[in-house]
Amino acid sequence: MRVRFAETDLMGIVHHASYLAYMEVARIEWLRRRGVTYAAWAEQGIHLPVVDLAIKYRAPARFDDEIDVETTLSEVRAATLRFDYRIVRITDGTLCADGTTRLACIDGSLSLKRLSEELVQALGTPERIG
Amino acid sequence: MRVRFAETDLMGIVHHASYLAYMEVARIEWLRRRGVTYAAWAEQGIHLPVVDLAIKYRAPARFDDEIDVETTLSEVRAATLRFDYRIVRITDGTLCADGTTRLACIDGSLSLKRLSEELVQALGTPERIG
Amino acid sequence: MRVRFAETDLMGIVHHASYLAYMEVARIEWLRRRGVTYAAWAEQGIHLPVVDLAIKYRAPARFDDEIDVETTLSEVRAATLRFDYRIVRITDGTLCADGTTRLACIDGSLSLKRLSEELVQALGTPERIG
Amino acid sequence: MRVRFAETDLMGIVHHASYLAYMEVARIEWLRRRGVTYAAWAEQGIHLPVVDLAIKYRAPARFDDEIDVETTLSEVRAATLRFDYRIVRITDGTLCADGTTRLACIDGSLSLKRLSEELVQALGTPERIG
Repeated sequence: MRVRFAETDLMGIVHHASYLAYMEVARIEWLRRRGVTYAAWAEQGIHLPVVDLAIKYRAPARFDDEIDVETTLSEVRAATLRFDYRIVRITDGTLCADGTTRLACIDGSLSLKRLSEELVQALGTPERIG
Repeated sequence: MRVRFAETDLMGIVHHASYLAYMEVARIEWLRRRGVTYAAWAEQGIHLPVVDLAIKYRAPARFDDEIDVETTLSEVRAATLRFDYRIVRITDGTLCADGTTRLACIDGSLSLKRLSEELVQALGTPERIG
Repeated sequence: MRVRFAETDLMGIVHHASYLAYMEVARIEWLRRRGVTYAAWAEQGIHLPVVDLAIKYRAPARFDDEIDVETTLSEVRAATLRFDYRIVRITDGTLCADGTTRLACIDGSLSLKRLSEELVQALGTPERIG
Repeated sequence: MRVRFAETDLMGIVHHASYLAYMEVARIEWLRRRGVTYAAWAEQGIHLPVVDLAIKYRAPARFDDEIDVETTLSEVRAATLRFDYRIVRITDGTLCADGTTRLACIDGSLSLKRLSEELVQALGTPERIG
């Protein structure tokens, strides 16, 4: 994706909170490529909020940079998932940031619930693009 | 309120979209001071989304500026409200922007509905601060 | 582009301020396709901030919708430009919003300056994609 | 501070990225109360970007909640600072999230530099409110 003007701050670099949006977009795209779409979760009353996260910033990304978010599923537990990310500037391969988020599976009343069989199976599927 | 670092962009000034957040905060505070709180709307299944808006930017606000959003209810119709805003820098009285938003009263299924008697009455109430 | 999760609000629809980000992305892409890139402005100390805007919201966009921002240059004056936008949901062609922004050409000290010959020429160029 | 409508997402809770904005506001206020203001840094060409961060989300905050961000300076090194935060809902004392950010002192060319004597002294000063 490409860095938006609104995502920069007065230092002229991407604001650190914008990386969370990039990681969210990347994770949702990762899931979509395995057949897990928001509509499907919502019908089953499932949400996957972030329960913890960590990021290290390595080099500033700037307005109009094209970045790639390399996304890896690194852990699947009974009710949680962990994704790891590397945010790389495409033109020169610079690592801008790396991070991790853990997501919990919850229902509409915000109670923790086990990942469904269907979801776990989808997570193991190879990705389909487009 | 005070301009947040995250609300600036690489020109070093407040990003134009941030003013919409300021106007939203001001309008919700305006309503709260007349006894209209989100909990009350939600129980009645009422939302007040923005259906049109316009802003003119007069002078840049900057990080850490303290700003005041002067908010006026300028029109009440069967199912819509209009608020006008003047965003003023407190230290020197500079007008940074002025704008207007029209809100429609809708229910959970996003259909238009008449403003309730209770809401219309609240709108005419003098404000109570604190 | 695709609606991001972070761009929704608790009504389950895209927050009205997010449309400003979409219009900004679209306008910058429109300029890029005519050879006007941020790096080029910055070297000449040129910025193009929004000086006024108006939007009408027609139908809610939702998380994961794919949207297209149809962008038209509608006015070129000595020191300002106007772009018009139609934000359309791709799957069913629904018009979600339409709007307009006027941009002023300013230098590093935020003073108004005439559009450069080079910029005006670029604006009249047919677009080149990719 | 009070949770803004724009900071929620379609789950009806505060989007996880919004907490970074709260922590930034709290840290800047913490510094201001010890006499360190943005204008002062900028004159000396100093910026304090976030170089790493971690957050654990404990309980959802919601629109219109009043929250307090308890902020502690937990580490001062030659060129970096660490702040820890506890984000607490005021009405019932619920811990919504806790986290930490490390900031590096850099100059205009984004090179690391030692914290100035003046800044280190200010960090040890008791806070002055108002």
